[in-house]
Amino acid sequence: MVTGGEFELINRLREVLGPPPDGVYRSIGDDAAVLVPPVNKLLFSCDMLVEGVHFRLDFSTPFELGWKALAVNVSDMAAMAGTPRYALVALGVSAADRPFSFYEEIYRGLAGAARRYGVAVVGGDTVRTRGPLVIDVAIMGEADRPIMRCGGRPGDLIAVTGSLGASTAGLEWFLRHRRRLGSPPVERAVLAHQMPEARVREARAAAATGGVTSMIDISDGLAGDLGHLCEQSGAGAVLDAGAIPLDEDAVELARQLGANPMEWALHGGEDYELLMTVAADRAPAVGEAVATCGTSFHLIGRMTAGETGITLRFADRTVPITRGGYTHF
Amino acid sequence: MVTGGEFELINRLREVLGPPPDGVYRSIGDDAAVLVPPVNKLLFSCDMLVEGVHFRLDFSTPFELGWKALAVNVSDMAAMAGTPRYALVALGVSAADRPFSFYEEIYRGLAGAARRYGVAVVGGDTVRTRGPLVIDVAIMGEADRPIMRCGGRPGDLIAVTGSLGASTAGLEWFLRHRRRLGSPPVERAVLAHQMPEARVREARAAAATGGVTSMIDISDGLAGDLGHLCEQSGAGAVLDAGAIPLDEDAVELARQLGANPMEWALHGGEDYELLMTVAADRAPAVGEAVATCGTSFHLIGRMTAGETGITLRFADRTVPITRGGYTHF
Repeated sequence: MVTGGEFELINRLREVLGPPPDGVYRSIGDDAAVLVPPVNKLLFSCDMLVEGVHFRLDFSTPFELGWKALAVNVSDMAAMAGTPRYALVALGVSAADRPFSFYEEIYRGLAGAARRYGVAVVGGDTVRTRGPLVIDVAIMGEADRPIMRCGGRPGDLIAVTGSLGASTAGLEWFLRHRRRLGSPPVERAVLAHQMPEARVREARAAAATGGVTSMIDISDGLAGDLGHLCEQSGAGAVLDAGAIPLDEDAVELARQLGANPMEWALHGGEDYELLMTVAADRAPAVGEAVATCGTSFHLIGRMTAGETGITLRFADRTVPITRGGYTHF
Repeated sequence: MVTGGEFELINRLREVLGPPPDGVYRSIGDDAAVLVPPVNKLLFSCDMLVEGVHFRLDFSTPFELGWKALAVNVSDMAAMAGTPRYALVALGVSAADRPFSFYEEIYRGLAGAARRYGVAVVGGDTVRTRGPLVIDVAIMGEADRPIMRCGGRPGDLIAVTGSLGASTAGLEWFLRHRRRLGSPPVERAVLAHQMPEARVREARAAAATGGVTSMIDISDGLAGDLGHLCEQSGAGAVLDAGAIPLDEDAVELARQLGANPMEWALHGGEDYELLMTVAADRAPAVGEAVATCGTSFHLIGRMTAGETGITLRFADRTVPITRGGYTHF
């Protein structure tokens, strides 16, 4: 049980967050936050993280946990080509004997990510639980023209930002060695897992070209999340294995661990890169828009007619891959 | 562990909820819901409920749990004189071996309360936990002129809607007898605990008079929540004990259980009635507005100058009461 009660923790959150930005009439401390409504379409989503399921406190620092809890929600806004605005943080404080400073560090991580992405944390709830630590962030954003999962069409090209596999590489390295320090590739991979980058600017720039037909962020792995796009778009997909941007650090750690980095990219999850389908003739424009943000852009396959699943094409063979991906559930 | 996975549960939620209402472009099934933004000021809050802390499944049915999880959030909107619009439901599914139908019943309760209050449940998250069942609802609403906790002034009258103590009476009766059936007072008190009424119409009608200076919903007990109003308004309060509307069923159950119904009203909590301060000359108009909704309205005291705490005045004596109230934390 934490030292100090619910109200003290909430007050501490308010202090850590600092004064609320413009657009916030009333923040923590009332029955609800009072906010200026956005002009564009409103986006609304949440992600709940549970200790021992989504994170482990022998691996993540409380600061990183707070950061990630917000960043993965920001990533959901990015996946809609939206701009994140306001967040609420509900914290289920576990019975484990953790000092007050432990929770302050979670809040510091939340506040850090909030500043990074221009989000105002405007309230939340702090409750006691007899079980594992639980953190649920609800986020509200806006988008002029949100990109859904359902707009992919046969013939559209499939594209991904950045590189894949580093997040799982960092986790797997920790699970094998039970420490997170090591060579630069190890430390970069661990950081990719703990403090993923939400691709907000990239998504908006890509969407602004008018060439993006569907989009999702990669939380379940490329296979699983492409499966969602295919299912909701009523299409299949063919991926060119050689074009999938495996993260260099993931390749190196896979070598050290005797693992397959392609498996991590397909089924590992938590890379939080953008996966999108783009109109074939607009692909260069979308690629340039993403590159303008300093992020790489990779065409990795094509949507196909009919719900025929996902096929992975290597130089010498073609294999169907399952849609399941990596699921926390 | 529940039978069936995350996606199956979310699909089931979608079915239970039925087609989304106007104003919802995109609901469950994407990275975020896409919604028409409100014109008025936006309200945003959440409440997390944890099994064994906020509810017990030998007392609440899963339907009631779902209903209450939404209703207490709607009550936060009411406390701001707002109209609830959209909600997200994050469910931490415990390892306990519960059938799929158990979670469906939670969703049915959520859907029932959503219909009752005109709220669209537009998404959420379903995750696994090794601990107790957790349900966190985030709610968004709007208000033309939200009423805060901080506007009470010395001389304002203190008013409360409905009656107090029934919710705690129902819980205490269960804790003593370990069953929830009984005489009509028992069953009404249990229902007050399990399916509290959120005073949305009453709050809006009261606020529309322009006479309400501060408001809160009674979740922690009259003493605790009046303490919040006093603290944020920089004022004290004197309550007239004889004017506090003790619930008739609470009085009857207190007699049977040898308890003090005034204690339940002051420190029991979860009545979800409105507690407000009103300009003395507008009190009749506010009372009439609440009465128009078919709900009783009671002037129970007066705000005083200085942060002097809360005093309870009986016919023969005056006692200070603590602000603590009933806290779940």
